[in-house]
Amino acid sequence: MIKGVGHIGIAVSNIEEILSSLSKILGISPPPIRDVPERKLKVSVVSIGGMGLEIIEDYSGEGQFAKFVRERGNAIHHICLLTDQIEADIELLKSRGIEMADPKPKIGVRGKKIAFAAPSALNGITLELSEP
Amino acid sequence: MIKGVGHIGIAVSNIEEILSSLSKILGISPPPIRDVPERKLKVSVVSIGGMGLEIIEDYSGEGQFAKFVRERGNAIHHICLLTDQIEADIELLKSRGIEMADPKPKIGVRGKKIAFAAPSALNGITLELSEP
Repeated sequence: MIKGVGHIGIAVSNIEEILSSLSKILGISPPPIRDVPERKLKVSVVSIGGMGLEIIEDYSGEGQFAKFVRERGNAIHHICLLTDQIEADIELLKSRGIEMADPKPKIGVRGKKIAFAAPSALNGITLELSEP
Repeated sequence: MIKGVGHIGIAVSNIEEILSSLSKILGISPPPIRDVPERKLKVSVVSIGGMGLEIIEDYSGEGQFAKFVRERGNAIHHICLLTDQIEADIELLKSRGIEMADPKPKIGVRGKKIAFAAPSALNGITLELSEP
């Protein structure tokens, strides 16, 4: 069952810079940055009132987030819906005619089971499902 | 004080189409659409677990949301932080060196006091403050 919005994914060219701005806005210490060298990503999550802002820097030069930032600059990349049963919710969405980019869950950059819907599912807006 | 993320603003070229997709994904009836003819905007809010997705169609052809959609297609436009005292939080942000596009609150499309930060405030990501 879909429980709510878990996080918003924001793709950026320089994660340190945006975390510095975000910390200043929220009056918090800059959160830790996790490097995921096998995917050439740096990731950090800032929680605001229970919802996460997932900041992603893709330093591969060619990954989906790097391409996205090259086209748009720093920008909000996706909305992630929380599900307590990702396999069941994928099947439910498919039964409603929603096309999934990931018809089976895969392991996301934060080690959770995730699945992306196809771009057509929400008219070009990128939608992710994730376990909590 | 900033209480959390109130909504995510999504700018689209056709509000009926995306609401139809969103309703299918969430298994809900399509929510009402409010027309704001003086701003040439159609607006609808879908609540997911307490957080809003604010869908905006700008049919002015020249407003900020129309330009945004022309450049990017349907896309996530902004993050709105909830504040219980918008004037005080604007002053707090300014005292931290955050530049505001709206240094005083104005009335948003949903009749609430809102204020946008300058694009530089969050490295190009559009940030809004709003009363609940």
